[in-house]
Amino acid sequence: MPMPAHFELLTTAAGARRGRLRTAHGTVETPAFMPVGTQGTVKAMTPAQLREIGAQIILGNTYHLNLRPGPALIRELGGLHKFMAWDGPILTDSGGFQVFSLAKLREITDDGVSFRSHLDGAEIFLGPRECMEIQAALGSDIAMVLDECPPWPAKIEDARAAVARTLRWAKTCRDVWGELGQPEKGHLLFAIVQGSSFAELRRECAEALAALDFPGYAIGGVSVGEPETEMLAAVAAAAPHLPADRPRYVMGVGTPPQLLRMIALGVDMFDCVMPTRLARHGCAFTPDGPMNLKNAKFARDARPLVEGLDNYTCRHFTRAYLRHLVMCGEILGCTLLTLHNLHFYLDLMAQARAQIEGGNFEKWAKDWCARYEAGLKEGEAVPEGE
Amino acid sequence: MPMPAHFELLTTAAGARRGRLRTAHGTVETPAFMPVGTQGTVKAMTPAQLREIGAQIILGNTYHLNLRPGPALIRELGGLHKFMAWDGPILTDSGGFQVFSLAKLREITDDGVSFRSHLDGAEIFLGPRECMEIQAALGSDIAMVLDECPPWPAKIEDARAAVARTLRWAKTCRDVWGELGQPEKGHLLFAIVQGSSFAELRRECAEALAALDFPGYAIGGVSVGEPETEMLAAVAAAAPHLPADRPRYVMGVGTPPQLLRMIALGVDMFDCVMPTRLARHGCAFTPDGPMNLKNAKFARDARPLVEGLDNYTCRHFTRAYLRHLVMCGEILGCTLLTLHNLHFYLDLMAQARAQIEGGNFEKWAKDWCARYEAGLKEGEAVPEGE
Repeated sequence: MPMPAHFELLTTAAGARRGRLRTAHGTVETPAFMPVGTQGTVKAMTPAQLREIGAQIILGNTYHLNLRPGPALIRELGGLHKFMAWDGPILTDSGGFQVFSLAKLREITDDGVSFRSHLDGAEIFLGPRECMEIQAALGSDIAMVLDECPPWPAKIEDARAAVARTLRWAKTCRDVWGELGQPEKGHLLFAIVQGSSFAELRRECAEALAALDFPGYAIGGVSVGEPETEMLAAVAAAAPHLPADRPRYVMGVGTPPQLLRMIALGVDMFDCVMPTRLARHGCAFTPDGPMNLKNAKFARDARPLVEGLDNYTCRHFTRAYLRHLVMCGEILGCTLLTLHNLHFYLDLMAQARAQIEGGNFEKWAKDWCARYEAGLKEGEAVPEGE
Repeated sequence: MPMPAHFELLTTAAGARRGRLRTAHGTVETPAFMPVGTQGTVKAMTPAQLREIGAQIILGNTYHLNLRPGPALIRELGGLHKFMAWDGPILTDSGGFQVFSLAKLREITDDGVSFRSHLDGAEIFLGPRECMEIQAALGSDIAMVLDECPPWPAKIEDARAAVARTLRWAKTCRDVWGELGQPEKGHLLFAIVQGSSFAELRRECAEALAALDFPGYAIGGVSVGEPETEMLAAVAAAAPHLPADRPRYVMGVGTPPQLLRMIALGVDMFDCVMPTRLARHGCAFTPDGPMNLKNAKFARDARPLVEGLDNYTCRHFTRAYLRHLVMCGEILGCTLLTLHNLHFYLDLMAQARAQIEGGNFEKWAKDWCARYEAGLKEGEAVPEGE
């Protein structure tokens, strides 16, 4: 089979893949991390700052943008790229995950999901057709199919039913995406592998979706409360059954070591709110684990967050100053920590790409994780959740 | 008398002055507006963004920085410039104004003010000596003397007593500033004219301070609740009695037309939280008055805030997008509106300087105010206060 025009697998090293994904708004070097721009903004960042730290592609949340300001308005104003002044690639999720995690009174049938908005209680229906229409209105470079993500832990019969529905919806999504003329614009559609913690279901779902020949594949239904070993097992169960010549994206993860371990399992793309959300809680990523700036020991610390890391925050500001901003609740604290944390993730992916090219990924990733996890053991308290 | 080395009066036009102020961290072209950086940060702005919009000098609040993180820590970390990574000039206020507006249980004597911190109730004393020591520790390019600012309205005997105390403290401050070796470093000390709404007291205070030969003079005790006409009258009563060869600074004002009217009265410098604070309430300055982006009429408005204004916000974003950010409570909304509002003020000062140089200031300012105030009359609701 000839390599598809939109994805090039450049080299592999012990399972890890170095690739290049072409979209209607530019090229993404993989492995890649996608900063999350839930409501049409990566929280606390200007598009200029995102460019400056090397963001290649960002994610938009269909659920949130569908509620506010709505796809009709965004289409009228020229699409999501123009609306938020980001001219690079945008991937949008299907909205399904937030329907399950945020919306109220949802009812799921084979046609789709009825739910009430978490903002104002308005009744909304999201089926595979609506899901594609919204993402087409946004102008997504990469749209995601509507899937059913069962809660964790799931019974095998529920997980099997969710896989069956996910496959049916994937086909409908593909047909509607075609009807809407999106493939001709170079807009890609990725399918999503479900199957909960059941390796056999993960394999079946991956194989069935692979046969449908999507431009790319995501592994969903991970990071929903399960232990890390189970999460990695779910990815390991699905990845080998996806076509090697298509990009693979694990949705909604993870910590820096989790990303490196999934790269070793052959994953190419990630998104996660962790770097942006922890920044707003006063927490900075470092090679020695996360650093909670509320800790009094940083009050007189004249060092940068990470010595020698080349971003605006590390070039100009001390830990003492950043702690001061955090303690005062200053917006600039959110901005500078978000910039640093996102750059830390993006830089980690750049290092991973170089290590795969150099053939030394496995050893490097092992050492990197050992240092990071040794830092974790020192028991720095890290704030939880939102 | 020869012109002092630190201030040059370049030209005047119908009362308005075009000058140049030299400080240890660079030159300030006047008339100038100083963005307020209360807690060691101009809220929601990076220093790079401040430079980009043309900020020449910023203000720090001695009251806040004294409480948190404290002058000893800032001195240890190399001074306020290094702490906040702003290498341009910094003016700090005396802390007196916030002692009167924020602190609890204050007691004022001829020695100074005892008060309790609004943060944790700690007992603190601020006298003229402490005031100078704190500002020396911060490394202020321009320090302000400790003054007593009576509330409005004031009885004439209370206003007279406040003037007398302000004059005594001004002398002590000047002596201590000298003892601390600040003048040798090129660090300037400005005196403050009080006198409430009493023209005779304003004149007396201005003349007495002028005789003490300070590097610059502020007019304080305005914008404390009095009507605008009374505020302008207080400035008009003081300004002619200050030495023409020293910069004049009106503290804590004001609206764009107020600034232009005070420039016509011979004022050179201003600071105000209005552009930054209103930004955080979703309000943008325009030549046709302030624009409240929460107004539904902006939901589909594809225009920039101000057509043709050359700042990052106006170059890239529509009113519809900015309204979306405001309605979602997104940090980027604060950032982009703060950047715009500060640039609007700084650009207004740049226009005023050019108009004074061109000899057309009076006519231009009148037309500018007429357009702005016509916009106000259209009744756009603007949010109040913090």
